[in-house]
Amino acid sequence: MTELRLSGRAAAPGLAIGPVVAMAAATAARAATGDPAREAGDLRAALAAAAAEITALAERSDGEAADILAFQVAMLEDAALAEGAFHAIEAGIPADHAWRQALAAEIEGYEAAEDEYFRARAADLVDIRDRVLAHLTGTAGLDVVPRGAILAAEDLTPSRFLATDWSAGGAVVLAGGSPSSHVAMLARARGVPMVVALGETPAGRVALVDGDRGVVVVEPGPQTRQAFEGRMEEAAAAGAAALAFRDRPAAMADGTPVSVLINIAEPAELDGLDPAICDGIGLVRTEFLFHAGRGLPDEEAQLAVYARIAAWARGRPVTIRTLDAGGDKPIAGLTVQEANPFLGLRGIRLSLTRPEVFRVQLRALARAAVHGNVKVMLPMVAVPAELERAGALLDEAVADLKAAGLPHARPPLGIMVEVPAAAISATRFPAAFYSIGSNDLTQYTMAAARDLGAVAELNDAGDPAVLALIASTVAAGAARGVEVSLCGDAGADLSLLPKLLATGLRAVSVAPVAVARVKAAIARC
Amino acid sequence: MTELRLSGRAAAPGLAIGPVVAMAAATAARAATGDPAREAGDLRAALAAAAAEITALAERSDGEAADILAFQVAMLEDAALAEGAFHAIEAGIPADHAWRQALAAEIEGYEAAEDEYFRARAADLVDIRDRVLAHLTGTAGLDVVPRGAILAAEDLTPSRFLATDWSAGGAVVLAGGSPSSHVAMLARARGVPMVVALGETPAGRVALVDGDRGVVVVEPGPQTRQAFEGRMEEAAAAGAAALAFRDRPAAMADGTPVSVLINIAEPAELDGLDPAICDGIGLVRTEFLFHAGRGLPDEEAQLAVYARIAAWARGRPVTIRTLDAGGDKPIAGLTVQEANPFLGLRGIRLSLTRPEVFRVQLRALARAAVHGNVKVMLPMVAVPAELERAGALLDEAVADLKAAGLPHARPPLGIMVEVPAAAISATRFPAAFYSIGSNDLTQYTMAAARDLGAVAELNDAGDPAVLALIASTVAAGAARGVEVSLCGDAGADLSLLPKLLATGLRAVSVAPVAVARVKAAIARC
Repeated sequence: MTELRLSGRAAAPGLAIGPVVAMAAATAARAATGDPAREAGDLRAALAAAAAEITALAERSDGEAADILAFQVAMLEDAALAEGAFHAIEAGIPADHAWRQALAAEIEGYEAAEDEYFRARAADLVDIRDRVLAHLTGTAGLDVVPRGAILAAEDLTPSRFLATDWSAGGAVVLAGGSPSSHVAMLARARGVPMVVALGETPAGRVALVDGDRGVVVVEPGPQTRQAFEGRMEEAAAAGAAALAFRDRPAAMADGTPVSVLINIAEPAELDGLDPAICDGIGLVRTEFLFHAGRGLPDEEAQLAVYARIAAWARGRPVTIRTLDAGGDKPIAGLTVQEANPFLGLRGIRLSLTRPEVFRVQLRALARAAVHGNVKVMLPMVAVPAELERAGALLDEAVADLKAAGLPHARPPLGIMVEVPAAAISATRFPAAFYSIGSNDLTQYTMAAARDLGAVAELNDAGDPAVLALIASTVAAGAARGVEVSLCGDAGADLSLLPKLLATGLRAVSVAPVAVARVKAAIARC
Repeated sequence: MTELRLSGRAAAPGLAIGPVVAMAAATAARAATGDPAREAGDLRAALAAAAAEITALAERSDGEAADILAFQVAMLEDAALAEGAFHAIEAGIPADHAWRQALAAEIEGYEAAEDEYFRARAADLVDIRDRVLAHLTGTAGLDVVPRGAILAAEDLTPSRFLATDWSAGGAVVLAGGSPSSHVAMLARARGVPMVVALGETPAGRVALVDGDRGVVVVEPGPQTRQAFEGRMEEAAAAGAAALAFRDRPAAMADGTPVSVLINIAEPAELDGLDPAICDGIGLVRTEFLFHAGRGLPDEEAQLAVYARIAAWARGRPVTIRTLDAGGDKPIAGLTVQEANPFLGLRGIRLSLTRPEVFRVQLRALARAAVHGNVKVMLPMVAVPAELERAGALLDEAVADLKAAGLPHARPPLGIMVEVPAAAISATRFPAAFYSIGSNDLTQYTMAAARDLGAVAELNDAGDPAVLALIASTVAAGAARGVEVSLCGDAGADLSLLPKLLATGLRAVSVAPVAVARVKAAIARC
């Protein structure tokens, strides 16, 4: 057993040691009993075990994760799903083959669906198929991984990541993938180290994962392991030291203050979080409100959520982004299928073509503005006319609320600067504030998709051209006297932070888990 | 019959009056005979008529158009295609339903193919299906349109456009579509007026098409028609006057010279064209060499074509772009399927991942360089390392050719400036020349796909941000003392031309058909 060192790309920081669990394990062979009654019994048992497993996971989850898991349980408990498999078993097919065939037809159906949302659900069916297969073949335990296990796979869907229990630690190592993918964002938000684009799926008993440098060592020798454990101890100590920074306002080495705000994707992330650790919320995503199966959320439902978030911040600014559907965030009944969704009808473009949906959100935001320091931010603005039209719709909503005698306020209206056109000449946009979306800005400036491993190296927020656009946006904010913040992943990239601050940027918005180390890094600048 | 005025977007300039031919005509109902023998006979007759029609068209076409039509004839003459339909007819199904069903399965198969090239071929099968249906239902004549007819449709594929005979004039009017689509590029190159994004498919007996202003008038009244005919006469006179400019070097009103070069997509475009009308070729696309069914072209085949083009130019510069596959230009066996192909592995990125393919092209280009003034241009360059790696491969190819004793020269190596990162800081790229690709530069800068009707308004090469990037590229060229030209569609947009020249740009490369009017417009600046 020789030590094997694999180099990939760092996708989520952190260090981990643990047993390697290959996601392909579910494809292990199974010896058929040859007895249809026993085969059917085995499949029934595997279905029950899988459902129990997912139910247990769902109980430990919330928000989007809980939704996805509940959907999987509902699918599993639908007798129609396995019906074909039981028929095939009666005809003498072994249980694992029968189940695989039955699911193949379902998965193909979803994959062929017109609607992007249903096509995305094919990934859930693959999860279900593999989980049941794992129980059938006796290789179950994909999610019941040993403490600190390393999940190795070709690639990983966000739903697969969410369905895994990371509360015991662990790491993800992928042959493919990209640091800019959604699953990498989730890993960073949850503090799970991840290395991608390794070129091969690591196989072995044990591995070290260096999510800071993008390195995986399989079957490490005693010396390598000892050195790595030393680094883990240092990192733990540094983490503890950084914690000391968490509750204090951030400042650079020379005392210059820097605002550190947080990004949230769902209100549950605020549970148990002390608002004193941050200078407010720099980005509230609102896509969670529009999730599957619930239809479009009405004004009261949106108001309740926005008001709750605004109240949490105790007077600190809360920047709520209007619906950013489209791109890689399809929403059933709202978004459409496109050849290049990242360059399509998304963000503010979609909201302006669906004013009846947009108006409900603007009314709810204006009503929430009396519950705290609410600011409203428009995603994907490319031309000043979009800001102007959204502003007119907001004015209309405010006038209607006034006429109806409902408590309200007109929140300041700012824009995300993530389309290069906006960054190149931000002064042309009379926004109340600019928030640089570094992830999208980078993918458009470099013309390299954020979720594609093959162009991951080009998708570099540290490219001089991207930094030049960030600097010009900061300068535009200074010229117009409005605030500029940055709410993309670049803000939590400690190697990039000094360059960002060098542009004059004085506000970053990052995942709550990153606040302590970002503040500690700012103090070193 | 009242006059109906529809507003859309101008996609290809020019004016036309003519009878409206709806592309949906092939779906007309057909009365079944109830006699399987007669139904089979009708289908056989329709197949033969369709094949004869396409063969006749193919004989009048060349290059890519001829390829596509030859492929369609080969499919039609393959007995296997209609076999299922004849079986269904024997079972009592009417001929048109049987044919439709048989083709539906084939089309679905192609649409579900992994390979993007095969998926694109589904459009050819739709063409074949509709052409045979038109003969079955007695509504044939989709391509045998009356002289100057107006083709009305929801959208139009490039293959459908190419399969239509435009030698008699005519125009295209689409409910959907985009001025930046490939079919719009083809219409501009062939001088066919086109209006897109009308919101509805014009229906009526006769229509006026104003491809300059993006307006269609259905069932025009006598006054409207008279005024329009007056404009057509004026345009014809202006065209004749512009012709006087065609053979002279272009110059602005104050005498400042401007280079006008031509873009070509296949060598056949040079047949009968006098090189004296232009200052050289600003863009030779090489994708035509990599077309379907022929495998990858070898070095001798490429050399023959490049040398022929270089010789045509009689010493004028000939700028050959290395393979720009990917994006909306899939090539079987080379490109891969991606969620956002415009932001994916395309252009130089693909060439660098496939050095064994790239090397053959570089060797052929270096060998062709002794036959004329050949320059080599790299598409989609985003970072200096790409230019550097391509330069090293070119050096290697030159060294190999020297060692082999083959005649060769090292052509100057320039870059397309079409990724915003390159335009933002072009001086970082030590290229021998810059060629601005305004189509891609616009779609990335605006984050709006060039082929999507829903964002067509945002896809505006005249946006101040796009013009700022063009100006900064021109300034970078001046600073480094290297030539800057522009080879996108913006160069032939007469309303944009004054703004482009105002940036200091002094070289544009346009379709041969546009040379005269571009030179005439430059003289007015």
